[in-house]
Amino acid sequence: MRRDAAPSQPFTTLLIPAMALIVHKYGGTSMGSIERIRNVALRVAKWHRAGHQMMVVPSAMAGETNRLLELAYAVSVQLEPRELDMIAATGEQISIGLLSLALKELGVGARSYAGWQVPIKTDSTFTKARIIEIDCARVQCDLDAGQVVVIAGFQGVDGENNITTLGRGGSDTSALALAAAFAAHECLIYTDVDGVYTADPRIVDQARRLECITCEEMLEMASLGSKVLHTRSVEFAGKYRVKTRVLSSLTDPAMPLEEEMQSGTLMTFEEDKTMEQAVVSGIAHQRDEARIALLGVPDTPGIAYQILGPIAHAHIDVDMIVQNQSVQGRTDFTFTVARSDYARALDILNASVKTQIGAHQVVGDPKVSKVSAVGVGMRSHVGVASTMFRTLAEEGINIQMISTSEIKISVLIDEKYMELAVRALHKAFALERG
Amino acid sequence: MRRDAAPSQPFTTLLIPAMALIVHKYGGTSMGSIERIRNVALRVAKWHRAGHQMMVVPSAMAGETNRLLELAYAVSVQLEPRELDMIAATGEQISIGLLSLALKELGVGARSYAGWQVPIKTDSTFTKARIIEIDCARVQCDLDAGQVVVIAGFQGVDGENNITTLGRGGSDTSALALAAAFAAHECLIYTDVDGVYTADPRIVDQARRLECITCEEMLEMASLGSKVLHTRSVEFAGKYRVKTRVLSSLTDPAMPLEEEMQSGTLMTFEEDKTMEQAVVSGIAHQRDEARIALLGVPDTPGIAYQILGPIAHAHIDVDMIVQNQSVQGRTDFTFTVARSDYARALDILNASVKTQIGAHQVVGDPKVSKVSAVGVGMRSHVGVASTMFRTLAEEGINIQMISTSEIKISVLIDEKYMELAVRALHKAFALERG
Repeated sequence: MRRDAAPSQPFTTLLIPAMALIVHKYGGTSMGSIERIRNVALRVAKWHRAGHQMMVVPSAMAGETNRLLELAYAVSVQLEPRELDMIAATGEQISIGLLSLALKELGVGARSYAGWQVPIKTDSTFTKARIIEIDCARVQCDLDAGQVVVIAGFQGVDGENNITTLGRGGSDTSALALAAAFAAHECLIYTDVDGVYTADPRIVDQARRLECITCEEMLEMASLGSKVLHTRSVEFAGKYRVKTRVLSSLTDPAMPLEEEMQSGTLMTFEEDKTMEQAVVSGIAHQRDEARIALLGVPDTPGIAYQILGPIAHAHIDVDMIVQNQSVQGRTDFTFTVARSDYARALDILNASVKTQIGAHQVVGDPKVSKVSAVGVGMRSHVGVASTMFRTLAEEGINIQMISTSEIKISVLIDEKYMELAVRALHKAFALERG
Repeated sequence: MRRDAAPSQPFTTLLIPAMALIVHKYGGTSMGSIERIRNVALRVAKWHRAGHQMMVVPSAMAGETNRLLELAYAVSVQLEPRELDMIAATGEQISIGLLSLALKELGVGARSYAGWQVPIKTDSTFTKARIIEIDCARVQCDLDAGQVVVIAGFQGVDGENNITTLGRGGSDTSALALAAAFAAHECLIYTDVDGVYTADPRIVDQARRLECITCEEMLEMASLGSKVLHTRSVEFAGKYRVKTRVLSSLTDPAMPLEEEMQSGTLMTFEEDKTMEQAVVSGIAHQRDEARIALLGVPDTPGIAYQILGPIAHAHIDVDMIVQNQSVQGRTDFTFTVARSDYARALDILNASVKTQIGAHQVVGDPKVSKVSAVGVGMRSHVGVASTMFRTLAEEGINIQMISTSEIKISVLIDEKYMELAVRALHKAFALERG
């Protein structure tokens, strides 16, 4: 079906042309043991033998990056970022060497490159550098010579030849950046799930794998805690319109190529214009949230910054933010943070902010969850919010906070109702039917 | 005493000038744990605070290189050398990051460099590359700015930006090459022994640490299996006349600098011209040798190559070689190999060489040891050989083979007499007196 590319399905995969340049990215779990590295090599060899130019971006073996960071933490509390990157980058360097050896063992010519050897040029923001430019010349020579090129993910090199790393989700970003720079036909992100689902299958039995998801939806899913792709990677794919597929590395590496090319979830850049487009594509959730409210805050200009500035300064990410209309010059200011930051955030507010701004009280709840309905279809359909609120009301679930974007509605609820809410909403939007 | 540099002791250490450039090299054992890395940092910080420019070359943490090679072996039997180097080089990269963090933790400005970042340029002989050139500019800037520069040993980069490693003893070579390139005042090789001894202290109670040893003697010691410094490193130190001291990293890192500057063994480049020069400096031994003889070999030109060519081709190192005078056109050809190569060498000879050259028989003994007297004083003194042979005869020890160089006499004996021979020779040459 997907290979027909009928006009009514403008987003489906076109047949991958012969001799296309394909980028594979394998996560740490996929590289987690010698056996799994051999499977990765078998899979890459299959694609290579089908006639494709192959570029492979592996992560560090599962556990390796943590092992390295623990060594660093044991030596130092100051953790100079340049030295952290020097240490952390070795994880991927080991992976590219091992994968190249495994490929050669299968009779496939392969050549590994550390980030600096490509080079993948970044800025100098150690531990979370951004890619500035990729020099394609050397790698292109290898590709043209029929070599599989294995490139270290997660790392690059700055203008002064310092090793940098790209931060969380960095290997995905590397793969997508390389796919963009080399104008690859498709970037396949191999991971330990087999695609993006309408809801977490561990919660909703009827959850269904999405064949396609728009980049915007993927972005919301990522920012909502669905761990398939990191926000930055999705932004990158969207910016450069990299055709990206998320699929499982745990399938039989010998599965037929045609079958593999239709598995997983493809990220698209055009909305589906057919009638069948669902209003809501999926129900996402984020379990470990915490809510903090400052009550009786004087409603003066700059108050939000006075509250959230110190929080941001402590590197605590704030998610939802709500400020009520003021009554008699005072208002309530509520926001959410990751549960692991809850105690620290409360301390900051109680220590100084509360008295500085003259708030009456700081209250909070560390046991809340966020549930979201996501879908580009919302843009042209009304009634999503009302369906959502009605469904939750019928289940007796109280909504504590609401936040919306053009393609997403999120509600904050008591964490004990989280699974119930996800199941009820999945059913209310008929997501099991596709 | 050593700081006086009296004319009668031209080889002793001169006082290290203030603000001298000093190179420290730390072996894998010295870097073997977080605690030991902290001790290395304390020691380097002490030298730095005394006003010296410091360059430090650490090895990979003990066990790390083996761990990496085992991963590679598990993936591949072909072991493409370029990829092996890609993997193996990460061990030292982790070490430089950790040591730099540990130094910063002590308030000492430090900056790490992988081999390619310096760059340390090598040829492309992966897994045993040779250093061609070192670019000093970038590192010199850091040194001038008072930074401790921590440089990965064992590795470099070839003309095509491939990572190379220098093979066994590579970190020593890195340190000595850097000391030569930067014209360092002294290169201190920190290891798990506190210097070079007149004999192995585990065998000879009266063994005495040598304050000095000539480069030539050190070279013989290294080639005789004393594991203090690898032959290639000593050759390098000799070629560029790098003042090199071998000393222990297991002493208290806070020991007074003056004391540390006189500990260990200093390698010198001039023979001692005082009357006190001992004829023999030390008794070295190599335990795990094996002897192989081809009997009744036709004495024709090229016969040595026909025998040893296939052995070398199998990457088996041959040590002593003796060919007797021929009798009636036939001779016996004897050589030694490491015991671990004995069976393989015998197989090669029996499989093809023996019949090809028409030898009568292949015999061997895998339980032999080599004992050597080493000393530059031999050059100008006769009677060393006769003292050696007389001593062994008095102990009833049969000599199986003899090999000599200008400053060394080696004998091959039954391994059960090895310790006895070392003790008897140590006494015969009065080495306990110094």
